[in-house]
Amino acid sequence: MTELDALIAPRRVALIGASDTASRLTARPQQFLAAQGFRGEVIPINPRRSTVLDVPALPSIAEAGAVDHAYILLDADPAISALEECARAGVRVVSMLADGFAEAGPEGLARQEKVAALAREAGIRLIGPNSTGVVHLSNGFYCTSNAAFVARDIPTGGLTVLSQSGSMIGMLASRGAARGIGFASFASLGNEAVTDVGTLGSLLLDDPETESFALFLETIRDPQALADFAAAAHARGKPVVAYVIGQSDEGQQLAISHTGAMAGARGGISCFLRDIGIVEVSVLDALLDAPGAMVRARIDPARPRSATVLTTTGGGGGMVLDQISARGIEIAGCGAETRARLGPQGIALGSGKLVDVTMAGARPDVMQAVISSLLTDPETGILVAAIGSSAQFNPELTVDPLVAALEAAPEGHAPLVVMPLPHAPGTLKLLAEKGIPAFVTPESAAESLAALFARTAPVARGEDTLPDDALALLDAAPEGVMDEVAAGAVFAALGLAQPRHVVLPPDGRARPVDLAFPVVAKLVSADLPHKTEAGAIRLNLADEAALDRAIAEMLAGVVVPVTAVLVQEMAQGLGEALIGVTRDARVGPLVTLAAGGILAEVLGDSSLRPAPVTEATAVDMTQEIKSFAPLRGYRGQARGDLAALARAVAAVSRVAAHPRVTEAEINPVLIGAEGVLCLDALIRLEGPPRS
Amino acid sequence: MTELDALIAPRRVALIGASDTASRLTARPQQFLAAQGFRGEVIPINPRRSTVLDVPALPSIAEAGAVDHAYILLDADPAISALEECARAGVRVVSMLADGFAEAGPEGLARQEKVAALAREAGIRLIGPNSTGVVHLSNGFYCTSNAAFVARDIPTGGLTVLSQSGSMIGMLASRGAARGIGFASFASLGNEAVTDVGTLGSLLLDDPETESFALFLETIRDPQALADFAAAAHARGKPVVAYVIGQSDEGQQLAISHTGAMAGARGGISCFLRDIGIVEVSVLDALLDAPGAMVRARIDPARPRSATVLTTTGGGGGMVLDQISARGIEIAGCGAETRARLGPQGIALGSGKLVDVTMAGARPDVMQAVISSLLTDPETGILVAAIGSSAQFNPELTVDPLVAALEAAPEGHAPLVVMPLPHAPGTLKLLAEKGIPAFVTPESAAESLAALFARTAPVARGEDTLPDDALALLDAAPEGVMDEVAAGAVFAALGLAQPRHVVLPPDGRARPVDLAFPVVAKLVSADLPHKTEAGAIRLNLADEAALDRAIAEMLAGVVVPVTAVLVQEMAQGLGEALIGVTRDARVGPLVTLAAGGILAEVLGDSSLRPAPVTEATAVDMTQEIKSFAPLRGYRGQARGDLAALARAVAAVSRVAAHPRVTEAEINPVLIGAEGVLCLDALIRLEGPPRS
Repeated sequence: MTELDALIAPRRVALIGASDTASRLTARPQQFLAAQGFRGEVIPINPRRSTVLDVPALPSIAEAGAVDHAYILLDADPAISALEECARAGVRVVSMLADGFAEAGPEGLARQEKVAALAREAGIRLIGPNSTGVVHLSNGFYCTSNAAFVARDIPTGGLTVLSQSGSMIGMLASRGAARGIGFASFASLGNEAVTDVGTLGSLLLDDPETESFALFLETIRDPQALADFAAAAHARGKPVVAYVIGQSDEGQQLAISHTGAMAGARGGISCFLRDIGIVEVSVLDALLDAPGAMVRARIDPARPRSATVLTTTGGGGGMVLDQISARGIEIAGCGAETRARLGPQGIALGSGKLVDVTMAGARPDVMQAVISSLLTDPETGILVAAIGSSAQFNPELTVDPLVAALEAAPEGHAPLVVMPLPHAPGTLKLLAEKGIPAFVTPESAAESLAALFARTAPVARGEDTLPDDALALLDAAPEGVMDEVAAGAVFAALGLAQPRHVVLPPDGRARPVDLAFPVVAKLVSADLPHKTEAGAIRLNLADEAALDRAIAEMLAGVVVPVTAVLVQEMAQGLGEALIGVTRDARVGPLVTLAAGGILAEVLGDSSLRPAPVTEATAVDMTQEIKSFAPLRGYRGQARGDLAALARAVAAVSRVAAHPRVTEAEINPVLIGAEGVLCLDALIRLEGPPRS
Repeated sequence: MTELDALIAPRRVALIGASDTASRLTARPQQFLAAQGFRGEVIPINPRRSTVLDVPALPSIAEAGAVDHAYILLDADPAISALEECARAGVRVVSMLADGFAEAGPEGLARQEKVAALAREAGIRLIGPNSTGVVHLSNGFYCTSNAAFVARDIPTGGLTVLSQSGSMIGMLASRGAARGIGFASFASLGNEAVTDVGTLGSLLLDDPETESFALFLETIRDPQALADFAAAAHARGKPVVAYVIGQSDEGQQLAISHTGAMAGARGGISCFLRDIGIVEVSVLDALLDAPGAMVRARIDPARPRSATVLTTTGGGGGMVLDQISARGIEIAGCGAETRARLGPQGIALGSGKLVDVTMAGARPDVMQAVISSLLTDPETGILVAAIGSSAQFNPELTVDPLVAALEAAPEGHAPLVVMPLPHAPGTLKLLAEKGIPAFVTPESAAESLAALFARTAPVARGEDTLPDDALALLDAAPEGVMDEVAAGAVFAALGLAQPRHVVLPPDGRARPVDLAFPVVAKLVSADLPHKTEAGAIRLNLADEAALDRAIAEMLAGVVVPVTAVLVQEMAQGLGEALIGVTRDARVGPLVTLAAGGILAEVLGDSSLRPAPVTEATAVDMTQEIKSFAPLRGYRGQARGDLAALARAVAAVSRVAAHPRVTEAEINPVLIGAEGVLCLDALIRLEGPPRS
């Protein structure tokens, strides 16, 4: 038996701690498995009962023989003992309900480390703790304590839901079932002591029933595993859509306290997901609607990347078109071919971009003719049908012409998706049965279409090695902040130009300097991160005498130890930028590019990516900075060398490859007409030097 | 009979053009009225039938005697004739189904002008044309051709829906009914030839059954009528919520072509609605959910303006909290009083801001105890209960403890709203019956709460008169663009300071000037709107000789007629702004405040309001400009006189009061440490001078 089979199609399942009291939560898995006709053997483990809910029970898993999957329903401490027994009994997959682990302070964390170590040592695929279990629909494997799975009407289909929150698998099952969405599996990941969402996703990729994934996330605990899963899912054409809690600061605080997860950079998870090819949605309904659309409404590469909105009702269709367009999707009107074919037949097609067949669309023959034509019209990218009242009262009359048109359409036709405007559960279910993607709200329609148009190929990461000289400098430096001269040397080794400069001894003597005046003088010290405020920088010094005076005054004004005095030629640029590297506790190293200056800071005009980045990605980043418009020649301004800036971003991002680097920043980078200059730099290292 | 009664509770209704063929759209109103047990007399008018659907028909309205309300179901041209007959017959209210009016080109527009004139002359309250009719629920007055009203399950209640789109009244009825929302009336306004949404809203304000309004808008045709309605609705405590198509450019284009409406400023409608006290929502579900919450979940002024989220399920509750917080609503955790009262009883209350009672909340007694305590806890502003699976399967068990807690709570308790996390139509309907506001999605919950916290008092408008000297200048100027000197004089009359300056004749002679050098010289000409590009401005001229040379060079370089040469003292400021006045085709005059410079333009950092504004509103506008952060002292920058800028905005906005002004702009306004200076100005006038 494969690990996947043990997970979702085990032959023998043990329910450790199953209750004989039907109303108890710990009685649910056994009841659900029975109610859903699961064909495998279900063995309740309960030392105080000979039978549990009329099924013979065993006192311990040791007496159960070979068990593929055990669901431990005991409290935290007995659950740990049960896991030890599972290890001895050679159980392949164990899911664990108990809370009281990493989310519950130091004591809980110690428990979690213990179960993780136990599971790893025994080679057990542990789901949880804090997991409401695993559900696979087609074989009735409802191995869950989540009350929502008492439902008998959850359709079987291709969507697999993975959630860190144990309650949300039930909420999503309930909302999906109401609109006929078919599910393959549900898994509640809980604290992910051993098995994170990426690892479980990779395992489930081999399930032939799973066509797509919906992830409900509160944090990311293993970014590499998630990236590997996303890449494999992309390669197999199985879309992955995620909804992430933590859009607000309060939400992020909550995710931290609720899951024991770490805080991270604002926007870090979003940029990471986009980078690895997972589509994030911000509307809950779209988490259910988008995956199916991405599977069944792929746009032929030969077709335009635009949406055509067809409706029977101007106001409602306009609302849908408006929402779609607001997400940046191009709107195409009725194609010329269709207009030429159907116009002469007296079929209304609207005059603007909305194809409004008016109430004539309530006639199935008219609807079928228009859809048939638009599906094959070369100007149609994807066809969005916004259907009025007929969807409410006549599901068959609504859906039949769509099915007929799709069946008659030749290969390469445009995909069709449907937005019923009224409350129309019957039509939604019928559409789902027929495999036609549908949406429940205009907002979900728009988010799902945006998902459909989003790129899901993983972005190539930049070089994750460093040149030998940069590596040697980073290895050798002491723990803490590298000063400007030392950090500048690292970035110089990475190919970043600096203004011509000399490094004088801490007393600033040893002159004359071999530089073109005017110059800048700065005191170099790890204790002076804010030079301007500390009076440790002087600009625009015209000659040796001015330099002399400036250095003397600065040295007289500071009390911290000074390592050296840095004298640079004054440089002028067309603009300024900041490049920074940080490590996010959840998604790993990130690189930020921001416009320089207070205004850009206030306006939050920056671009964030997982580091290191390629030059191509860095070019995308420069294009995201709105404040660079003047540097792009807006209103006749002089153009800056944004290509050189992109090269600098890629180079700087490579320091993320060094494990000692916790933070790095160049601020400012001066952007010239040709090339960029690194004016000030900082690197923070942790841990002892490496030899 | 009042006009309101004739609209929604007529004694005698004529259906002009009613069809005897049951399947036809024009047969629907008669069928719906009969099915809903409408007690008034329904008279089909059809010259070709003696009976229509078994009801005696009359050949024309002239023979019908006194009729309160007629619904004309004929095509455009016969509909006009029918309206003439209604006028002769003294019908009070007429709704009209036909399209082919303002939305249908010049011919249609002529038709619309004709019906408008007819209705006005006869004193008929005309709804439409292009109206699917009027529905009042409590008396079964389903006088509509909208197919959705064949439904028998639309609950009667307090929400009145006004929609320019005729199909959307049905879509909203259907979606609202599915969650138990009770409706008072629906009206489809169509082209609003005579009766716009504001006028009809004002009329329906007198309907005692109407507690709140939901508006579905594609445009605004009478901003004053809408503002009057909003003010009256606010005074009567009846909230008004609007959803507006046209968030995207494509959506706005569509609204124009669909409704025959005019284009307007991006954001114009939104700022207008906010200003008059109508809450705009961007999520369709919130159009249905928010009004009820605003009626039934008012927060006592003594309570904090914050939300407390209570849940039985961490993930789902966290999602709701996250969405609410992302809308800028403050989140309060469990109050100390509640923690002290319930903590010792062993009830889990969560540790962070989410009050997570865990699965214990499935026990009605626990839920009731927690809710009772939180409702009276002084730290609770509004209580949001995010309910898990019990909402799906046990509506009574879910709702009963909430009702019990609310009934037992003393006056001044916090309001309670509910977000069922699963698909839970039964619970939603039960909550609606009990008058407890509920939401269908986390996004609707968040938008509805934001609506609840939004201000609905209309904002006071600024002075709508002008000082005599400014008035005289604007009256006397010729049509077209007032040059900088003339426009500067108008703004000076409004109290705006300019740098010291002299106006020289077009040849630039007549020197020496009595100004402190350095100075700026500009050519004055209505044909030189862009002085920099045209080489018609020179800065920083150090003395008379430099001024001389500069003027000569500029005059040699331009070919357009020059009115004068303006010489100003050079002024330095801490920042720059732009103040502009425009007229929006839909909502009237608007004033814009924007940060100066290319960056602010690129980043769209501006604030928009209906004009004229008061100084208080102008202060709010300055606070919305992010780029002014340095002027507010951010990072130790020198503070600019934003109070003086606000006074300038209020003063400039007053030019909107002059009917000849189509556009005005001061760019830049120089912001100093004390006061502001108007450096360049422009006013565009239309129509002949007034004497």
